[in-house]
Amino acid sequence: MFDAPGFTGAPLDRCDAARHDPALVAAMRADPEARLLALDGLEPLVEDGRLGWLPVPQEDGVALALLGRSEGRPRFAALTPGVSAYKRSPELMALLLDELPAGDAALYGVARSLIDWHARHGFCAQCGHATEVLRAGWARACPACGAQHFPRVDPVVIMIAEHDGRALLGRQPGFPPGRYSALAGFVEPGESIEEAVARELNEEAGITVEAIRYVASQPWPFPAQLMIACTATARDDALRIDTHELEDAFWASRDEVRAALAGAPDARFQPPPAYAIAHLLVRRWAG
Amino acid sequence: MFDAPGFTGAPLDRCDAARHDPALVAAMRADPEARLLALDGLEPLVEDGRLGWLPVPQEDGVALALLGRSEGRPRFAALTPGVSAYKRSPELMALLLDELPAGDAALYGVARSLIDWHARHGFCAQCGHATEVLRAGWARACPACGAQHFPRVDPVVIMIAEHDGRALLGRQPGFPPGRYSALAGFVEPGESIEEAVARELNEEAGITVEAIRYVASQPWPFPAQLMIACTATARDDALRIDTHELEDAFWASRDEVRAALAGAPDARFQPPPAYAIAHLLVRRWAG
Ligand SMILES: [Zn+2]
Ligand SMILES: [Zn+2]
Repeated sequence: MFDAPGFTGAPLDRCDAARHDPALVAAMRADPEARLLALDGLEPLVEDGRLGWLPVPQEDGVALALLGRSEGRPRFAALTPGVSAYKRSPELMALLLDELPAGDAALYGVARSLIDWHARHGFCAQCGHATEVLRAGWARACPACGAQHFPRVDPVVIMIAEHDGRALLGRQPGFPPGRYSALAGFVEPGESIEEAVARELNEEAGITVEAIRYVASQPWPFPAQLMIACTATARDDALRIDTHELEDAFWASRDEVRAALAGAPDARFQPPPAYAIAHLLVRRWAG
Repeated sequence: MFDAPGFTGAPLDRCDAARHDPALVAAMRADPEARLLALDGLEPLVEDGRLGWLPVPQEDGVALALLGRSEGRPRFAALTPGVSAYKRSPELMALLLDELPAGDAALYGVARSLIDWHARHGFCAQCGHATEVLRAGWARACPACGAQHFPRVDPVVIMIAEHDGRALLGRQPGFPPGRYSALAGFVEPGESIEEAVARELNEEAGITVEAIRYVASQPWPFPAQLMIACTATARDDALRIDTHELEDAFWASRDEVRAALAGAPDARFQPPPAYAIAHLLVRRWAG
C-alpha cells in the first residue's frame, strides 16, 4: 500500500534468548566474525555507503550492548558514558536516509536509542545509586535497592484530521521555513492511542474528532519514540490554535498537498521529509 | 464495532495548559469544589459504587498531581513517597471493572500510573540527585543537573496470529488455571509496532507472520503500559514455544473460542478477563 516507514526494516535478529545467557554473549563477543558499530560520539562512521564496523574489543572494561545478529555476524555497540543525544544535524539525517540502505539506518537507530538511554540513565531513579549494565545492554540493575530499569520507548501519536476533503497541517516554531506537517504529541499515562489523538487535536487545534483510524508506525531514534500515525474526522473546521505548541495551522486541500509533495514551485507549503511517518500520512491522504 | 476497552473513557479534561501555569494550579487547588482522590496506599476507597474523593489539603508540604477537571471539579491525587505498585489483587480488579463505572476505573488508572511513577522515580537517572515535582505532577526536575523527567508509558503489543481459521493462544506460568490469552511483549527501541508483533510471535512461538493489522489500544495502569492489539497471519502452524515465556500455546478453532467466551462447561480453556484488551481481540476474532 505504501513504502515502509523510515527506520524500519533493520535486518536484525535481536537474539533475545542470548541476553539472558552471559556465557552465550561472551562467546558471541569472542567470535572473530563479531563486529562493533563504528561511531564518533553518536554519529555513524560510514564506509562505502554502509555503516562502518570495527573488530570487537575484548577487554573487560568496555561495556557493550549486544544489538543482535545481522548478515551472519554478532553485532555490538559500545555504551559510552556521557554521550548525550537529542541533537541531530541535517547532515546526519541526509546521511541516514538518503545515503545509507534503509536497513542500515534502522540498525543505527536501534543502537542510537540504546546508547543514548544508557548515557542518560546511569543512576537508579528509585534510590539514586549508580546502576550497572544488565542483560547484554538491554537493562540496568541497581546494586543498592535491587531495582531493574529497562530502556524507554515513548509512544507518540501523529495524525491528520480531515474535514470536508481537507487535511489539518501545522508548523512548530522550530520547523524549517515553509514546512507544515501532521500534528503530534506524547501518549500520556492512562489513555489509549485514540484518546491521545483526540486530546492532542483538541489541545493544539481546538477541534473535536471522531472515527480515529490507525495507519502505520515508525521508531524514531531521537531519542526513542514510537511514532503512531492515525487519521481522524473533525466535526467542524473552526481552529483554536495553541500558540505554545504551533506557530500556525491550516486546512490543506488535496490539490495543495499534491503540489507540495510534487515540489511545485508555487506550493503553499513544504511537506515533511520523506523519512518521517508524517510524509507517509500526508502521501497516503493525498491518494 | 465493539465495546470500548477497559480503562478507557475517563471523563477527564487533563488541563494541559494549567500544568505550565503554577498560579492557575494553585487557584484550582484552592477552589472549594476541588477534590482529592481517596486512596489507601494505591487502592481506591469506594463510596456508593463510585471512586471516593476528599477535600484537597491546603498545606504546602503535600505534593499533589493535578489529574485535571472532571464532572466540573478540579481533581488531584497525592504523590505519596514510597508507594510502590506492580501488585494488584483480584479483588481490586473486580472492584475496578465490575463495580465502578468505566469512567471511574479509567480515571483511577490515570492516577495510579502517575502516583506509581513518582514513587519509583524520586531520583535523577542522569546524575543520582533527588528530583522535585514539576508541571503539576506531570514531570520531575533535577536541581543538580537540570534534567527533566517525564512519566513513562511503555508500549506493549498483544496479538492473535491466525492460521487456517484458527487463532494462536498461549498461557504464561502465572495465569489462573485454564486461562489462555493473546501473546504479548514490550515494544523495544528501534522497532515499529508491526516489527514488534512479528518479533514477539517468532520469539515466543517460533512462527513467521505477515499482514499485521492494528485492532485497538488500551492503557494498562499496572504500572503504565499502552497495550496495542493486533492480528497477524501466520505462514504455517508449526509452533516452537519459548518455555521461559509461555507454559503452553495452541491453535484454537472458532468453535473452541466461542465456547470459552460463552463459559461452556466443556470449554477447552478460560478466556482472558473482560476488561483486558485480549478479550476484545479474542471476541472480535470469534466474530
Ligand atoms: Zn536503586
Ligand atoms: Zn540530575
